[in-house]
Amino acid sequence: MPSKTAYLEFHTKHKVEFLNITQDVARVVKESGVKEGMVLVNAMHITSSVYINDAESGLIEDFQKWLKKLAPEDISLYKHNLTGEDNAYAHLWRTIMGREVVVAITNGKLDFGPWEQIYYAEFDGQRRKKVLIKIIGE
Amino acid sequence: MPSKTAYLEFHTKHKVEFLNITQDVARVVKESGVKEGMVLVNAMHITSSVYINDAESGLIEDFQKWLKKLAPEDISLYKHNLTGEDNAYAHLWRTIMGREVVVAITNGKLDFGPWEQIYYAEFDGQRRKKVLIKIIGE
Amino acid sequence: MPSKTAYLEFHTKHKVEFLNITQDVARVVKESGVKEGMVLVNAMHITSSVYINDAESGLIEDFQKWLKKLAPEDISLYKHNLTGEDNAYAHLWRTIMGREVVVAITNGKLDFGPWEQIYYAEFDGQRRKKVLIKIIGE
Repeated sequence: MPSKTAYLEFHTKHKVEFLNITQDVARVVKESGVKEGMVLVNAMHITSSVYINDAESGLIEDFQKWLKKLAPEDISLYKHNLTGEDNAYAHLWRTIMGREVVVAITNGKLDFGPWEQIYYAEFDGQRRKKVLIKIIGE
Repeated sequence: MPSKTAYLEFHTKHKVEFLNITQDVARVVKESGVKEGMVLVNAMHITSSVYINDAESGLIEDFQKWLKKLAPEDISLYKHNLTGEDNAYAHLWRTIMGREVVVAITNGKLDFGPWEQIYYAEFDGQRRKKVLIKIIGE
Repeated sequence: MPSKTAYLEFHTKHKVEFLNITQDVARVVKESGVKEGMVLVNAMHITSSVYINDAESGLIEDFQKWLKKLAPEDISLYKHNLTGEDNAYAHLWRTIMGREVVVAITNGKLDFGPWEQIYYAEFDGQRRKKVLIKIIGE
């Protein structure tokens, strides 16, 4: 059973940033030679997400406004921040948006519907973060 | 390594609809001949979900009321809708409910706890949508 | 393709409880002999979660306060409870926190970032519950 492991690295300019990584994942799938299988794509950090949704800038703004409503950034709201952290909100945002996606590989390609795009969402950036891509199949 | 790919198609009567697809997935698992492995079940669209929870009509009503509270349908709340769309809420509901489930296959069957049921949740229906079932294992 | 199936059992003292199961999963991965693959870890019940986030007690308190805000425990809010249940909130909390995680196995180990820890979150405990660990790979 062929398998392949790859890592993407990010050092975002902004604290909160949304990056479309679909082509990066598609390239690794192609390189793997796997024709039928699954690819796991996950954030390796607990204040960022990998999710699948629309590549549309209005929606990406909507996500941020919505996350701020569900879990405000206000430091004083959270016990986690008593440890010297200021990113409790980012742990909650990542919980809403998800850690990982698993995508089918069919005929050597990501088996996607018409609008599915893979995003890395950074919620506490401006430092080095990694995404893991793991492929298994044949 | 045997693998199997199948697609379910839906054209729901209502905009929002919850469909129990457990038996469909179980049938595809049986047809695959896979005895030990995993099955991925995912919405191929970004305004619908696949999730696992209770087959209980009260809870399904609770989900809808709750999603409307967390992310109201009101078109004017969302920038996404400035593109001519009216379904920003559906992108957010799907984020809460999830895109996919991965289920273990043990002894040729879905390895489920006593109440686990797989649902397709449509949030912007009345048009053709698909669910992907991908099985890998042996 | 080697595979391995294991089950963890819990009978929590409290209704709501968060248990770090990282070492349990790591042990099963080691026992499996799988060097390259994936491990699925999922709650087998629909009122509990498996998720990955920080092993920090303040954050675990924050999660509980936040879940109570997003979906209050008040029995009268939910139609599900008209069936004689009192745990509708737990079904919603589990939806936020997630049913499952899929983790890469690389060189025989959980391929984790620096702070990733696997938790079992019980939302309606004080009775017997199970978590499934399924490993596939080679």
